[in-house]
Amino acid sequence: MIPRYSRPEMVAVWSQETKYRIWFEIEAHACDALAELGVIPESAARTIWEKGNAATFDVDRIDEIERETKHDVIAFLTHLSEIVGPDARFVHQGMTSSDVLDTCLSVQLARASDILIADLDGLLAALERRAFEHRDTVTIGRSHGIHAEPTTFGVKLALAYAEFSRCRERLVAARAEIATCAISGAVGTFANIDPRVELHVAKAMGLTPEPVSTQIIPRDRHAMFFATLGVIASSMERLATEIRHLQRTEVLEVEEYFAPGQKGSSAMPHKRNPVLTENLTGLARMVRSYAMPAMENVALWHERDISHSSVERYIGPDATVTLDFGLARLTGVIDKLLVYPDRMLANLNKFKGLVHSQRVLLALTQAGVSREDSYRLVQRNAMKVWEEDKDFLTELLADPEVLAALPEAELREKFDLGYHTKHVGTIFQRVFGRGG
Amino acid sequence: MIPRYSRPEMVAVWSQETKYRIWFEIEAHACDALAELGVIPESAARTIWEKGNAATFDVDRIDEIERETKHDVIAFLTHLSEIVGPDARFVHQGMTSSDVLDTCLSVQLARASDILIADLDGLLAALERRAFEHRDTVTIGRSHGIHAEPTTFGVKLALAYAEFSRCRERLVAARAEIATCAISGAVGTFANIDPRVELHVAKAMGLTPEPVSTQIIPRDRHAMFFATLGVIASSMERLATEIRHLQRTEVLEVEEYFAPGQKGSSAMPHKRNPVLTENLTGLARMVRSYAMPAMENVALWHERDISHSSVERYIGPDATVTLDFGLARLTGVIDKLLVYPDRMLANLNKFKGLVHSQRVLLALTQAGVSREDSYRLVQRNAMKVWEEDKDFLTELLADPEVLAALPEAELREKFDLGYHTKHVGTIFQRVFGRGG
Amino acid sequence: MIPRYSRPEMVAVWSQETKYRIWFEIEAHACDALAELGVIPESAARTIWEKGNAATFDVDRIDEIERETKHDVIAFLTHLSEIVGPDARFVHQGMTSSDVLDTCLSVQLARASDILIADLDGLLAALERRAFEHRDTVTIGRSHGIHAEPTTFGVKLALAYAEFSRCRERLVAARAEIATCAISGAVGTFANIDPRVELHVAKAMGLTPEPVSTQIIPRDRHAMFFATLGVIASSMERLATEIRHLQRTEVLEVEEYFAPGQKGSSAMPHKRNPVLTENLTGLARMVRSYAMPAMENVALWHERDISHSSVERYIGPDATVTLDFGLARLTGVIDKLLVYPDRMLANLNKFKGLVHSQRVLLALTQAGVSREDSYRLVQRNAMKVWEEDKDFLTELLADPEVLAALPEAELREKFDLGYHTKHVGTIFQRVFGRGG
Amino acid sequence: MIPRYSRPEMVAVWSQETKYRIWFEIEAHACDALAELGVIPESAARTIWEKGNAATFDVDRIDEIERETKHDVIAFLTHLSEIVGPDARFVHQGMTSSDVLDTCLSVQLARASDILIADLDGLLAALERRAFEHRDTVTIGRSHGIHAEPTTFGVKLALAYAEFSRCRERLVAARAEIATCAISGAVGTFANIDPRVELHVAKAMGLTPEPVSTQIIPRDRHAMFFATLGVIASSMERLATEIRHLQRTEVLEVEEYFAPGQKGSSAMPHKRNPVLTENLTGLARMVRSYAMPAMENVALWHERDISHSSVERYIGPDATVTLDFGLARLTGVIDKLLVYPDRMLANLNKFKGLVHSQRVLLALTQAGVSREDSYRLVQRNAMKVWEEDKDFLTELLADPEVLAALPEAELREKFDLGYHTKHVGTIFQRVFGRGG
Repeated sequence: MIPRYSRPEMVAVWSQETKYRIWFEIEAHACDALAELGVIPESAARTIWEKGNAATFDVDRIDEIERETKHDVIAFLTHLSEIVGPDARFVHQGMTSSDVLDTCLSVQLARASDILIADLDGLLAALERRAFEHRDTVTIGRSHGIHAEPTTFGVKLALAYAEFSRCRERLVAARAEIATCAISGAVGTFANIDPRVELHVAKAMGLTPEPVSTQIIPRDRHAMFFATLGVIASSMERLATEIRHLQRTEVLEVEEYFAPGQKGSSAMPHKRNPVLTENLTGLARMVRSYAMPAMENVALWHERDISHSSVERYIGPDATVTLDFGLARLTGVIDKLLVYPDRMLANLNKFKGLVHSQRVLLALTQAGVSREDSYRLVQRNAMKVWEEDKDFLTELLADPEVLAALPEAELREKFDLGYHTKHVGTIFQRVFGRGG
Repeated sequence: MIPRYSRPEMVAVWSQETKYRIWFEIEAHACDALAELGVIPESAARTIWEKGNAATFDVDRIDEIERETKHDVIAFLTHLSEIVGPDARFVHQGMTSSDVLDTCLSVQLARASDILIADLDGLLAALERRAFEHRDTVTIGRSHGIHAEPTTFGVKLALAYAEFSRCRERLVAARAEIATCAISGAVGTFANIDPRVELHVAKAMGLTPEPVSTQIIPRDRHAMFFATLGVIASSMERLATEIRHLQRTEVLEVEEYFAPGQKGSSAMPHKRNPVLTENLTGLARMVRSYAMPAMENVALWHERDISHSSVERYIGPDATVTLDFGLARLTGVIDKLLVYPDRMLANLNKFKGLVHSQRVLLALTQAGVSREDSYRLVQRNAMKVWEEDKDFLTELLADPEVLAALPEAELREKFDLGYHTKHVGTIFQRVFGRGG
Repeated sequence: MIPRYSRPEMVAVWSQETKYRIWFEIEAHACDALAELGVIPESAARTIWEKGNAATFDVDRIDEIERETKHDVIAFLTHLSEIVGPDARFVHQGMTSSDVLDTCLSVQLARASDILIADLDGLLAALERRAFEHRDTVTIGRSHGIHAEPTTFGVKLALAYAEFSRCRERLVAARAEIATCAISGAVGTFANIDPRVELHVAKAMGLTPEPVSTQIIPRDRHAMFFATLGVIASSMERLATEIRHLQRTEVLEVEEYFAPGQKGSSAMPHKRNPVLTENLTGLARMVRSYAMPAMENVALWHERDISHSSVERYIGPDATVTLDFGLARLTGVIDKLLVYPDRMLANLNKFKGLVHSQRVLLALTQAGVSREDSYRLVQRNAMKVWEEDKDFLTELLADPEVLAALPEAELREKFDLGYHTKHVGTIFQRVFGRGG
Repeated sequence: MIPRYSRPEMVAVWSQETKYRIWFEIEAHACDALAELGVIPESAARTIWEKGNAATFDVDRIDEIERETKHDVIAFLTHLSEIVGPDARFVHQGMTSSDVLDTCLSVQLARASDILIADLDGLLAALERRAFEHRDTVTIGRSHGIHAEPTTFGVKLALAYAEFSRCRERLVAARAEIATCAISGAVGTFANIDPRVELHVAKAMGLTPEPVSTQIIPRDRHAMFFATLGVIASSMERLATEIRHLQRTEVLEVEEYFAPGQKGSSAMPHKRNPVLTENLTGLARMVRSYAMPAMENVALWHERDISHSSVERYIGPDATVTLDFGLARLTGVIDKLLVYPDRMLANLNKFKGLVHSQRVLLALTQAGVSREDSYRLVQRNAMKVWEEDKDFLTELLADPEVLAALPEAELREKFDLGYHTKHVGTIFQRVFGRGG
């Protein structure tokens, strides 16, 4: 967790204070269920809630006890008994440390998911707003980094919107994967605790009961969760890369926001670096990398070994905090992105009219000119544009052989950008449910 | 694609023959739509279907043309025109190579998914059968590789069943991710082709239309697909690892099947190696590794660059063929697994009765003995088991201080394995919808 | 191994024929050593060499036997006995299959390394030639994709040369890692074979003896080998990415070679796609990904499990064949790269003279103007360049306040590109050992 | 950086205080060189050293300035000028931020390497001591987790020693990769600074000058560095896995150290979990995973983009701190490992004498019995051991057909464990340079 790439709300999910509060809630809900089942007195359960709710868990004190006992859950329970008094002996009855630890991790990952889903909603809102704003801002589409055919900047943003909508769906599914509760004992057999305790705690904590666990919740769930974050990070990288490309000096169709009077950029006004999106590219590499140890965590030995634990101490916070920061940063970038439609048009017309050569070629063929001849005609005029910086339409209009096949009006019509944007409404309809 | 780790049905999905057949179908369906829209003659569409259906596409001939044209789709279309005749000029109108290539990849990945789903169904069936067979086969549960509490072999298999059920759900979701069709032209604007063509072809090929594409279908879809295969492979590794552990000489609770008379194992009858599950462990590493380049494929430049293509030529076949082989092999292993309940019981009783020490400790406390005294009592008898190979119950019964707190009948009751298996039915009910 | 990304020499390293020939040589050299030690008759060793050298190993026949015996080494030995006759009983005495398999893999990886080293030498030669050709071809250096200060295209290539020189050193080290020989028996104790056999075979096969092995050669060696290939692939990606950037329509400073008359590019002369370097980017992703399973292969169980084997059947050929192809392709790209110095200069001067603004700022400060005033002076003239497309030097010369601080001659001197290239000779001297 | 997996010395390498001190030293050494070249006054260089050496850099103050300037190096220089006074204007002349940042990272990684090399030396010393202690402690070697042939525990440790010796060599090479200094300006051309400054600073900081850089030191160096740490972590995982296997209840040949009186293990004396080595397995997954983003960092755009920076903020500290902690923990585990030779022998003899069946088979063949008959003889006696728990030698001695071929003395000789350990001295000689 790097402070400069962290936001407080997500950091709070992973604080010691949050963790102990969740532990307490799990234990106290379990006491409710045990009381309901007649295993422990109802008054004890009530006392535990009252005293625990009123108390602040002392992280330093728990640390102190842990240094002695070398066991985090026991340290917490000891501290809890200092708070609750004699009724504390009814806490944790028949439970295993992992029951608390794993269910707590589920709660933390579910809360982290909720923040990330909200992040995506924010990003989607920004993308939608800017997409409609630039629905008709014509720009050149590029394949292989080479000019291809016109599209609109809005379509580019609609694509990103659709992509992050998919990411949102994936994240909702990933959240369901890890929002489970296991209170099933040392090897998952419920030997010392009634399965109904698990059902109760699950419901109370907003989780679903794990159908069958070992000492722990199976780690294929977590692998799927972190793999999903890796895919989302990769989409973040894609959009960041697009912006970096569009901001490069020779293209300059968009820029990350900068305050107009901002000093430093004035002496070299071209020197505005897309550092936010470059940063996002790096952050994406990190989040993606966490998928690998998460997958290696699946094949634990028998009913559990503890090798997954250290991995999760890293990637639990790091993946969620980093992605949260990244998505928020990306939202800011999109929200305030400086867009230069004139420059887009200028780039599109870089080779004066040549972008329409394919259409002219097709028109000539359809007008009955042989494929070979059509090619020759287009080529000799295209070459003048390419080599002599001439205007394509002007050259074509001056070529009698071309005019013989295509009258001027028809020829001019082939240079209509509207030809390329006529279905943008349809695309928007598909993506946003409204065309404009 | 390694022949020894390949099965013919999945290999066929990736053959040149299959690919060209799918290309043909996409082109021919597009012709139907174009004819319906009045762009090309209906008779042409009919002819294309008739001639194409009757023909076998000549892979060598297409290769030959490709060597000249250096373009696979053009080579195919040239060959198609050799088959179809003059009407071939109506094929591919307004389309881009990627329209065909990407939609074909979707079809192949969807078919591969169907095979993998069937594989999982086979594995689930085997797991269910063996789980019920061993629902009550008591075995020791282990945490950290160390004996913990009893469970049953059936519960172990139920856990695997639940895990692979999740894998199946994930795969169904992953299939939906990549089962999309894009026929949208050079930069995704439908400039030269009506969006209705895409809708028609999508439906005809069993795909959903891609809401918005560039020249290609967005690669976050494929990243999610291959990441999912990586998670499934990791679950495969988990179960394989479990079996490898259980087969090791000192444990020997299960063995991969071997024919009774099999020579080679006779001189060293203990030397039966779990080579199938070791192999699965290696295969899992490969399938998992493909998630990484798939995620790196997402951030293509602008409306596409072609860097994803080479990656997919490797991982498309390799990931699906390897996982198909692995799941089938795992199914065979589970189906025919030799299970040794006696040995399970013997291992469980390795430290004669010590596995019940926790319960005895708890019983003493509940009988009113102080925690410290309970500990001392259990410990002094446990140590005799550990150091002198004595029987725990016998020792306890001979310890007057113990008997003073716990009468013999109660003490004996603590050694009942049924205590640990009493909720197995509940677990099975949760996992399989039936308890036994 | 994808045929289109494979070259025959490297493919041959991994053929069945090559493998069996190496197996034979290992066995025959071992026989020499055993004969020398008096364990088997010298005449037998001679016969084995004579018959084996004269024979062609029949891959189909060996496959046939393997289908029966389910053991590749036994199948080979059986076939060898068909060739050699009764003396074949002296072959493989005291050896374990892994002795042959692992030593063979070492030979194959060492041969693959030799090809890759030659590939790097070819690439280095191409880079050096083009670097000197363009030692003084001035071009704009870019940070963050934004124009920074001038450099030369030769310096860019010198950087690549230095990088691939490091790659070569790494590869030589990686080759040494895996060029070891182990003939040490079932668990590495030489129980059934004299260690001198290993020494003899190692020397004869051009390998070093493994100081201590288990049944196999330790896999940290192979992990290091494949990790090194991953790093080399990443450098390949870097150079490919550089070229892709420089070829994009708006930059167009270089292009991958195309034949002047090449049809297809004429109608859209700007549409020349950097498909080779895009392809290299994808191939790099694959080679890099193989590092991960190679590292996971290290932690085998006890004296060996066979999980590494399947991984190596994939990545042994795939990593080396793909990297060989990639390096050769990159060499071709560099060798024939079309370089456009005029365009480089035009891009550099895109913001007429603005690239020198930093130097002017510094000069003003050094001439005694305060930092704030210097800034103001540079800024007001820079803004005219940026907003009104004026020429920076002209504007400065027309600004009396500037001229008051810096006389015209001095001002003009600040616009000398030679200022930026004055140390290029030093850099070349460091990299190539000669400055020009 | 997880506190519980961190050691103070390595953490200190990455502190803000350390970083600013290194920045200061780089700047001050550069001033020396600039003074020597006559660019700045010698007295200024002296003052800078004197004031800077006497001062403590105020991290909070620098943070405060950075919040304003949004630039870390400028913030530091501003603070430095607060300390140094007017002469501070001579600091950083002609330099670029990356000159300081990248050279500092080199120093930090070199220092981290030194700590890691010392860690490896500590581990090697522990391995050597324990290896000689158990040079002749016979234990069963296992392939596939199945008993194979005897070896010694010392050989196991010698293997680990050889492996970590290789790791040490790799780390020394990796250190050389990243111990370079670049002070070459905005695009690496030395436009504003004499290359001799770089030479001076490099020497003063214990680095080598980077032959050719861009704005930054090329990232293939760092990729190689982190890939090497990944390989070392994988070796750490291998040894940890070996110990985990040997500690499992059914094997119990070694145990991680525990204090004899340690409470908690007494009631269930078998319940001593190999949690340290399990933890190391997880840590290895993390360190290994960092190789991937490090490799993705190589392909930066043109003369640099800043995407690598965020990645390195994570993996620079995380990889080195985690590996340092892991190696130290592993050293402790090896140093104090509880080894149970009796249990090793008991396990070896689990199938009474069967481990020698291969040798008996060979002896029969060598005595002239046909392969088929030898097999039959061994098999019928082996089966009695396997199925009826008989003793193999006793059975053989009672089998007249066996005795007819092999006299008793010879037969008994085949059961000599010394046969398997006779070359252990040779192996030790190879690994440690001394046999015993």
